Amino acid sequence: MTRTAAATAAYDTDGGTFSFPAGKTLRLESGASLGGLQIAYQTYGTLNDTRSNAILVCHALTGDQHAASTHPVTGKPGWWNRVIGPGLPLDPERYFIICTNVVGGCMGSTGPSSVDPKTGEVYGLTFPVITIADMVRAQAMLIEALGIETLLAVVGGSMGGMQVLQWAADYPEKLFSAVCIAAAARHSAQNIAFHEVGRQAIMADPDWRGGAYEKAGVRPEKGLAVARMAAHITYLSEPALQRKFGRELQRDGLSWGFDADFQVESYLRHQGTSFVDRFDANSYLYITRALDYFDLAAQHDGVLAQAFRKARGVRFCVLSFSSDWLYSTAESRDIVRALNAAGCRASFAEIETDKGHDAFFLDEPQLDRTLRGFFASTAQARGLA
Amino acid sequence: MTRTAAATAAYDTDGGTFSFPAGKTLRLESGASLGGLQIAYQTYGTLNDTRSNAILVCHALTGDQHAASTHPVTGKPGWWNRVIGPGLPLDPERYFIICTNVVGGCMGSTGPSSVDPKTGEVYGLTFPVITIADMVRAQAMLIEALGIETLLAVVGGSMGGMQVLQWAADYPEKLFSAVCIAAAARHSAQNIAFHEVGRQAIMADPDWRGGAYEKAGVRPEKGLAVARMAAHITYLSEPALQRKFGRELQRDGLSWGFDADFQVESYLRHQGTSFVDRFDANSYLYITRALDYFDLAAQHDGVLAQAFRKARGVRFCVLSFSSDWLYSTAESRDIVRALNAAGCRASFAEIETDKGHDAFFLDEPQLDRTLRGFFASTAQARGLA
Repeated sequence: MTRTAAATAAYDTDGGTFSFPAGKTLRLESGASLGGLQIAYQTYGTLNDTRSNAILVCHALTGDQHAASTHPVTGKPGWWNRVIGPGLPLDPERYFIICTNVVGGCMGSTGPSSVDPKTGEVYGLTFPVITIADMVRAQAMLIEALGIETLLAVVGGSMGGMQVLQWAADYPEKLFSAVCIAAAARHSAQNIAFHEVGRQAIMADPDWRGGAYEKAGVRPEKGLAVARMAAHITYLSEPALQRKFGRELQRDGLSWGFDADFQVESYLRHQGTSFVDRFDANSYLYITRALDYFDLAAQHDGVLAQAFRKARGVRFCVLSFSSDWLYSTAESRDIVRALNAAGCRASFAEIETDKGHDAFFLDEPQLDRTLRGFFASTAQARGLA
Repeated sequence: MTRTAAATAAYDTDGGTFSFPAGKTLRLESGASLGGLQIAYQTYGTLNDTRSNAILVCHALTGDQHAASTHPVTGKPGWWNRVIGPGLPLDPERYFIICTNVVGGCMGSTGPSSVDPKTGEVYGLTFPVITIADMVRAQAMLIEALGIETLLAVVGGSMGGMQVLQWAADYPEKLFSAVCIAAAARHSAQNIAFHEVGRQAIMADPDWRGGAYEKAGVRPEKGLAVARMAAHITYLSEPALQRKFGRELQRDGLSWGFDADFQVESYLRHQGTSFVDRFDANSYLYITRALDYFDLAAQHDGVLAQAFRKARGVRFCVLSFSSDWLYSTAESRDIVRALNAAGCRASFAEIETDKGHDAFFLDEPQLDRTLRGFFASTAQARGLA
């Protein structure tokens, strides 16, 4: 286990890359297994003596372990700096917060851009297809290696929320609480459709080279940028786009051409081109596939409540955003209904906002208040107050 | 004016390509002008002696003049065969129905794949940017050439509906009635964003060659297919996608790879690949640009009602679909409010359906009934009953 200390945080930050013991493989849902597994992670705060204050934060599709530390590639603040920090709902002075890069990712955890120990070459498309359950199994192995028996909470938004649900299904005995934000128990046809557009955009790029672009010394940047642009529209609500950009122009007057005339075009192009600097195209294929394959009920004879039947001891909090059309409130309600049917304790709130799916990253005071209240009462119930 | 007779229709079908008189140019909103203009069109039915039974049907983004005749490329029935035909709301036995391919299109009207008479070479990106108003101005010139002073109706859905609104603003004296279906008076930020994704997908394809692909003997088929896939999602509602495909698989079990596992993936891929057989990539760029530039209020000092101030004599019908998220009912209501403010007679209906934007092509009995009623009363008011 190597460790690197981050210099910029005002609180205790640690992390590094956890290498699985030699001979220990990650058994995958596909039937394949991964050897030589590495999981990159970051921690904020200190584990207490009773090891009872650990919170696992799960990231979304294009996120990574830098939830509350400066991103080493972009130099930007952590993606959940608004929630994790002194005085914030997830306070590193109280909790030991862990965030791992998912298996299949590209920020240090084993993924398609890693070297296959069997061949000595970059995996590319020879990397096995992974699932949300595989991501969670790797996290559970890391948590065990860190000496943590029970997590005070597992929390995440979007794909992070799906990991939370999978944790509750697969490791309920290791959870004291679970917070699922802006997620769904399965990917809908529309969700799959948008991901398929992104994948086709990447695979249409001749620099993708059937996934073997690293070997060729190129990157399918144009295709990946288009994929990001299409996905990004789904992260924002129509009213938010209208409020933020409307039909505002970049310059005085139209160009009467194909330059970015409208501010929303320029914004989207920027989202695309900046994304390719920090993300790997094959990771995008694998992680979107993991999301599309996600269907928690299907893993339990088609009955979602069955997934939670052993999770009666877990305190659940389910949150949705009123203007989220990627994973709508209706899908959060389905989760809550299943939790209730399974006899689990679940609190639910739909947060009124026009910011759409991405609201969980953004300035959303009601989200902050809800998380603060939930974590405070959870800590108290756990005897940490 | 050349004419070709279609063999397959059960009613009188005619059409061909109208060549503008030598020396007559189409003045464009950009300030440029187009010479040697040709407008491909199709007619259904016969113009009566008083020339009072002509109805202009305007097509959507990827439509063409083959509204009720077999498509010469795909061999498929006309795109509005459900509405135009004997016994149907637009009956060629009563009306003389005209449908033109828009300027900028690729089915015979002058567009970016036409030869520039000045250079003898295919326009490509040297084609001037055109607008909805330019499309309508060309249609008005054709209508005049056909000897028609007043249209009994102009009707269209989606971009066709925008042309209808533009007709009412620019040529109200030539209209007896106007039917605007599933449209908006301007393109929203989200509308522009989706189009920009499509354009970037096309321009990212190396076979696009800066628009000069025809000269190079290639076509940006992969990019155009991705553009179509992204757009196609916006034409369907989430519930319709869920009802039609859900998470149904193509085969027994998952492929654990990147083949089309889900039926919705296969469907989308088919939408993309079949589209490139019948559509030109540069036309897609130009026509999406015309849509993005569309803002009828902006043409009238920012006041939409001003656009309709001379249209008090026109009978309007505005229709929307409850599950259309591309051009929502709220946008149709904005049109109706402006019509009312301008003192125009407007009937409005929101048609309850889960089929989304594309409902205007599909089996939607309430749409049929509404159109039938409107055209019947319009014909009666015009003394055609």
